Amino acid sequence: MSLRIGITIGDPAGIGPEIVVRAVRQMAKLPVRWVIFGPESVKNDPYIQSLGPFPDSVEWVVTGSIAENYVKGKADCDNGKAVEVMLKVANEWAMSSKIDALVTAPISKTSLHLAGSRFTGHTTMLQSLSNSAHVSMAFYSPQLKTVLTTIHHPYIEVPSLLTPERLKTTIRHAFLYAKMLRIATPKIAIAGLNPHAGEDGLFGDEESRLLAAPIAEMANSGYPVIGPLSPDTVFRRAFDGEFDIVIALYHDQGLIPIKLLAFDSSVNVSVGLPYIRVSPDHGTAFDIAYQGKASENSLMAAIQLATTLHAA
Amino acid sequence: MSLRIGITIGDPAGIGPEIVVRAVRQMAKLPVRWVIFGPESVKNDPYIQSLGPFPDSVEWVVTGSIAENYVKGKADCDNGKAVEVMLKVANEWAMSSKIDALVTAPISKTSLHLAGSRFTGHTTMLQSLSNSAHVSMAFYSPQLKTVLTTIHHPYIEVPSLLTPERLKTTIRHAFLYAKMLRIATPKIAIAGLNPHAGEDGLFGDEESRLLAAPIAEMANSGYPVIGPLSPDTVFRRAFDGEFDIVIALYHDQGLIPIKLLAFDSSVNVSVGLPYIRVSPDHGTAFDIAYQGKASENSLMAAIQLATTLHAA
Repeated sequence: MSLRIGITIGDPAGIGPEIVVRAVRQMAKLPVRWVIFGPESVKNDPYIQSLGPFPDSVEWVVTGSIAENYVKGKADCDNGKAVEVMLKVANEWAMSSKIDALVTAPISKTSLHLAGSRFTGHTTMLQSLSNSAHVSMAFYSPQLKTVLTTIHHPYIEVPSLLTPERLKTTIRHAFLYAKMLRIATPKIAIAGLNPHAGEDGLFGDEESRLLAAPIAEMANSGYPVIGPLSPDTVFRRAFDGEFDIVIALYHDQGLIPIKLLAFDSSVNVSVGLPYIRVSPDHGTAFDIAYQGKASENSLMAAIQLATTLHAA
Repeated sequence: MSLRIGITIGDPAGIGPEIVVRAVRQMAKLPVRWVIFGPESVKNDPYIQSLGPFPDSVEWVVTGSIAENYVKGKADCDNGKAVEVMLKVANEWAMSSKIDALVTAPISKTSLHLAGSRFTGHTTMLQSLSNSAHVSMAFYSPQLKTVLTTIHHPYIEVPSLLTPERLKTTIRHAFLYAKMLRIATPKIAIAGLNPHAGEDGLFGDEESRLLAAPIAEMANSGYPVIGPLSPDTVFRRAFDGEFDIVIALYHDQGLIPIKLLAFDSSVNVSVGLPYIRVSPDHGTAFDIAYQGKASENSLMAAIQLATTLHAA
C-alpha cells in the first residue's frame, strides 16, 4: 500500500494553497496517496485552479467553509477559523492512522488571534488536539539536525526554564528524533549556555549547576548524549560529522546555524506527537500570496522528509 | 617601501613558533619585511631550526629569555612571562610604527596565570599596553564579518551589559572595521537579543527598552546601521550579501555562525587599538605542539588579511 501524506493548506490568505498544489503536482510520481485538507473555496479559487488539474493520487478533504471571495494577502478572522477546523480534522486523520504523516503549510498567528484562538502556532495546537504531554521542535537539514530545549521565550528567562525535567524530556526527544531519522547508533551533543560552556565556571555556572546532573543521569541510562559542550563549536563539529544531532538550549542557538546552512530548505519536525508531523520553516508570506512568486522548495523538502521518517 | 608585518610567536610551549616559521617561509615571496618577536631559545630550538633557514626578509627580534630546554606542550610560568615580554616589545614596535601590523600567535591563559599576569588574553593585554579606551573583538571570514558587543561574560549578564555607551562604541567600531576592510559604503546590521528580535515585545523587550534608542541615535548621526534584526536570520542575510557586517550582542551569537562557516580560517581582528592587530582564531594546541601536526592555514589567513587591512 502506498504511503498516505496529509497536507493542510495553511492560512487560506497566504502562500500555503499555491505551494501545496504546486508541490503535489511536482511530486505526483512518488508512490504516495495525497490528502489535502482545506476549505472548498480555496480548492475552487480561480488562481488555484489555474495551476492545473490535481493528479489522480490527490484527495481534497473539505474542512470548514469560508466565503467564495475569501480574504487574501492579509490576516483574517474567518481564515483563522478555517485553520482551526482543518487542523482539527487533520489531527483526527493522523490519530486514526488514515494518513501516515502530516505536513502543514504555514499559518498566521494574527489570523488565529483574530479568530479568538488561544494558540499561536501549529506545535501547541497539535499538542493540545492530540493530548500530548510535551512536544519538542526539531529542525532538519541534510547538514545539521537540532532539537530546541526552549522555543519562544525571552532571552533572560532561558536559564530558569532549564529544569531537569525539561532537559531530560528534550534528550528523550532527541533520541526519538534519531530513531525517526533511522540513525541506528546516534551521537547526540548538547550545547552549553555560556561562552566556552562556562570554561570551568569562569563565564557562568549553569553548566555545572543545572545541566551536568540531568545529562549524566540520561547518559547513565543509556542515552547517547554528551555535553554540555562549547556552543560556538558544537554545531560545526556536528556539521563535520562528529555528532548526529545537537540539542540547543534556546531558539537562536539552534536556529542561527540551521538558517545559515539551509535558509529555505530546512524542515521543522515535531517530536513527541503520536504521529509524524513536519512543516517548511517559513511563514505565510502574505505579501506575495496568489502571485506565483512563492517557492514550493521548502515545502517539497518537508514532504520529502515526511516520506522517509520512521514512526518512532 | 615594503610592508612590515610583526608576528609574536605566542606561548613557546604551543604550536605558535612552528606555524609562524612555516607561514613566513611559505609567504616569503610577498613584498613584506617580517619581524618575529620571541625568545632566542625558541629561535634556536632544534625542531624550529629543522623547519629550514629563515628567508632573508625575516628579522627575529629577541624578546625576553627562557631556558634552552624550555617547557613544551603545557602551560608554564616562565613561558607566560616570556609572552608578557614579547607583547610589550611588539606593542612598542607597533606604537612607534616600526611595524605596520601585528599578528599574534596563540597564547595560554593558564601560562599567563602561572606567570602572575592579570590578563587572560591578547585583547585586554594590548588594550592596556596601548592605553586604549575600548577594544572590540571582530571576526573576519570571506563569507561573514562580525563584531561582538560583549565577549566573555556569563549568558545571564549580557542584558545588563548592553548599555547605550557600549552599544554606541560597538557601532563606531563596526564602522571603523568596515573602513579597515576598505568597504566604502558599508551596510551594518545589529542583531536583536530575543527570538525574532522580541516580536514586538512578545518574547522580551530589550529591543525597545535597550537597543532601539542608541541604534537610532547612531543612525541619525550618519552611521549606516540598522536593527535590531531577528538574530536567526541576520547572519544568513549578511551571508547572502544584504549586509557587510553584523554586530552580535554576545559571544555565541556571533561565533556560532563564524565557526560554522570558517572553522579553521576565520581571523580575529582587534578594533579600537591604535594599530592593526589580527590573530588566528585557535588556541595553543599544546597536545600537538612540536610534532609537525599543526596547520598554519589559519595563521596564514590572518597574515594575508593583515597585509590588506587599511589603518583606519
